[in-house]
Amino acid sequence: MSRAGLDESHDPARTSWVAAAGAGGDFPIQNLPLGRFAPPGHGPRPMVAIGDQALDLVDIADLLPEAAAATLAQPGLNALFALPAADRRALRRRLSALLADPAQAARLTPSLHPIASCTPHLPAQLGDYSDFYVGIHHARQVGALFRPDAPLLPNYAHVPIGYHGRASSVRASGVPVVRPHGQSKAADAAAPRFGPSARLDYELELGLWIGTGNALGTPIPIAEAEAHLVGLCLLNDWSARDLQAWEYQPLGPFLGKSFHTSVSPWVVTAEALAPFRRPPAPREEGAPAPLPYLQHEEDAARGGFSIRLEAFLSSAAMRAAGHAPLRLAEVAAADAMYWTVAQIIAHHSSNGCNLRPGDLIGTGTLSTPGAGGAGSLLEQTRGGAAPITLPGGETRRFLEDGDRITLRARAEAPGAVAIGFGEVTAEIVAAAG
Amino acid sequence: MSRAGLDESHDPARTSWVAAAGAGGDFPIQNLPLGRFAPPGHGPRPMVAIGDQALDLVDIADLLPEAAAATLAQPGLNALFALPAADRRALRRRLSALLADPAQAARLTPSLHPIASCTPHLPAQLGDYSDFYVGIHHARQVGALFRPDAPLLPNYAHVPIGYHGRASSVRASGVPVVRPHGQSKAADAAAPRFGPSARLDYELELGLWIGTGNALGTPIPIAEAEAHLVGLCLLNDWSARDLQAWEYQPLGPFLGKSFHTSVSPWVVTAEALAPFRRPPAPREEGAPAPLPYLQHEEDAARGGFSIRLEAFLSSAAMRAAGHAPLRLAEVAAADAMYWTVAQIIAHHSSNGCNLRPGDLIGTGTLSTPGAGGAGSLLEQTRGGAAPITLPGGETRRFLEDGDRITLRARAEAPGAVAIGFGEVTAEIVAAAG
Repeated sequence: MSRAGLDESHDPARTSWVAAAGAGGDFPIQNLPLGRFAPPGHGPRPMVAIGDQALDLVDIADLLPEAAAATLAQPGLNALFALPAADRRALRRRLSALLADPAQAARLTPSLHPIASCTPHLPAQLGDYSDFYVGIHHARQVGALFRPDAPLLPNYAHVPIGYHGRASSVRASGVPVVRPHGQSKAADAAAPRFGPSARLDYELELGLWIGTGNALGTPIPIAEAEAHLVGLCLLNDWSARDLQAWEYQPLGPFLGKSFHTSVSPWVVTAEALAPFRRPPAPREEGAPAPLPYLQHEEDAARGGFSIRLEAFLSSAAMRAAGHAPLRLAEVAAADAMYWTVAQIIAHHSSNGCNLRPGDLIGTGTLSTPGAGGAGSLLEQTRGGAAPITLPGGETRRFLEDGDRITLRARAEAPGAVAIGFGEVTAEIVAAAG
Repeated sequence: MSRAGLDESHDPARTSWVAAAGAGGDFPIQNLPLGRFAPPGHGPRPMVAIGDQALDLVDIADLLPEAAAATLAQPGLNALFALPAADRRALRRRLSALLADPAQAARLTPSLHPIASCTPHLPAQLGDYSDFYVGIHHARQVGALFRPDAPLLPNYAHVPIGYHGRASSVRASGVPVVRPHGQSKAADAAAPRFGPSARLDYELELGLWIGTGNALGTPIPIAEAEAHLVGLCLLNDWSARDLQAWEYQPLGPFLGKSFHTSVSPWVVTAEALAPFRRPPAPREEGAPAPLPYLQHEEDAARGGFSIRLEAFLSSAAMRAAGHAPLRLAEVAAADAMYWTVAQIIAHHSSNGCNLRPGDLIGTGTLSTPGAGGAGSLLEQTRGGAAPITLPGGETRRFLEDGDRITLRARAEAPGAVAIGFGEVTAEIVAAAG
């Protein structure tokens, strides 16, 4: 393996005998993301994606390295995530070899299921879900709506700001989002009202899945932080802006966020992302250096990921009229992130807080400045002041019932076969009651 | 069973054949709290407390109602918590009958373990941990340190304010608390520093253990909220005030809280607390009525609990010199709480957020106005401005290494045998590294 973590599984010339697994799709043989999907008539099983197919890992456990195979009977991928990185790399190399070797086709083909026919599940049994705020342009653009003269608070440049999220309401792609009820108060109202949220929004984020954990009281040094990352996914942190605005002082977002969080079901592994590392976005002139516990030479050189994120909206009327989804945002993740993945993990554990295999961490909304770079409607419509027009003529300040948000992402770099994240999609349904 | 939920298990005249289970202790036969304790040389087992003994429920499963007995092989009490309230009441009545009947002594005595010889564990495998802020005098006293003219924010009177906490770092009584490192910034400093917290504090809270859950998207109406409560415990929400002050804008407390949370190991059940219900504290003149989703006649009549909470501090030097622990606070829970348990549960799920069996919810710090009523050092020392003097002459603004905080509680009411919560205790140890 090279210093950059590349081995034969990253060889751009490698191809698979599985049809539709060529370059151009999300899941060429260089990707091999892990997930849990239920084939028709079955419960969820550990799977790896190849082309448009999901390969059942339990079926082929006898062909896999022993350490990984021993984890597959668990109800989530937590035990697989908890393996040392060397064991996860060994699994990747074996899967790559099996899917590249035409002699394996007869043995493996019965264990392939079209992804489109399977139901996605959460990859792991979540421990805790935390959400960060590393998208500096998001923080600045949202801050400017409330504090035009000082959009960023003084701590932003020093602290990777985050908060604890709600684990129970994290769902895999496809589960409809019930519009939440809650308290909100109009600026000119004497008292709050209770009812369905009128300012329902999406947030375009990356999710980090944690592998090996740390003991309570024992921080993870930044030099070791990335070894605790299993991989990345897409995350939509649905937000009820009206509930959030009224409740968030002084303890932060609560019911404005906890009604639903959607994640893409495939975990694109840290190993698969090795060819797509780049320097983080340069700090702006005058920005302070990170405190030493957040500094690491390797992270400063390669702490970013060349991942392009996209968000799409389709309304019920658009779908009925045959309109394609409207792209709301296209964002280069590394340009959007003020703090790196390693800095997030090191900071999160710096107080001794223990991370566990299967913990999920969101980056926070990733936006870039300018048109088409806003990773939420709050930013794109400037708090609802500038509605957008949809194909067919509808307008949107915030999301309506029947609207469907889909997030997609691809990692791209010169000389490497691009890989995709699949998607996370969900539709808003009317509030209950 | 009477309308108030009383049955023969609450009979003040009932006594147990177990020695030291008389009135005056925490665990008379009218209490029967549930927990998980490890006897010497064994792993944790489901137990009920009687006097100074813990009775192993697995050993006597054949004597218990079938529904409850079937849950005891699980790794936590979650499945027991998830039972319908009628099944939990049946378990209580059976345990009460067994422990009242001297004819059972020979059969049960081999399954009794002195509580003092057992290691406490968390009662359930935590799903999510949330923490509220219903202690209005705490909110006002802390707010006054920062905003003397407007201690309470405008939303306080309308919204049961809460935030998501960290589940991974919740520990049972006895586990030492490692002083966290973190960023802090002195008011006159140009930049933050990173190091051990210098303003480590405790918080005196009640914890709510959730029983039956609700489906995502389906709020729990306030009329049904208490049916989802299994019972209460003591909760110490350790807080690093310096970390918290620097990090908490705009997303709330994070690393200032997530390094450790301690809970008492016995769950004092909702059934055991039935004789101790009282009206909530009356709203102050001019306070708004709760919105309809937080209003319920029965809750307005009996939504409070007559529970007296206490916090004690002993330093290493005090223990060496033989000094008794110093009582820091004595608080009547119902006088401290602006929102009831039922309002907490109804609000938490009002946006469709799903609660699960084994979720833990803190009330937030419970304080009453005046001397001896402050449930945190932040309030008691007015942010460190007014140090307290310990027996032996030491002073404290915040907690030092070697300090031990112990919380205790008792439910008391005329005509009822008082019951106790046991305790939650933990000692501060020096920061690692």
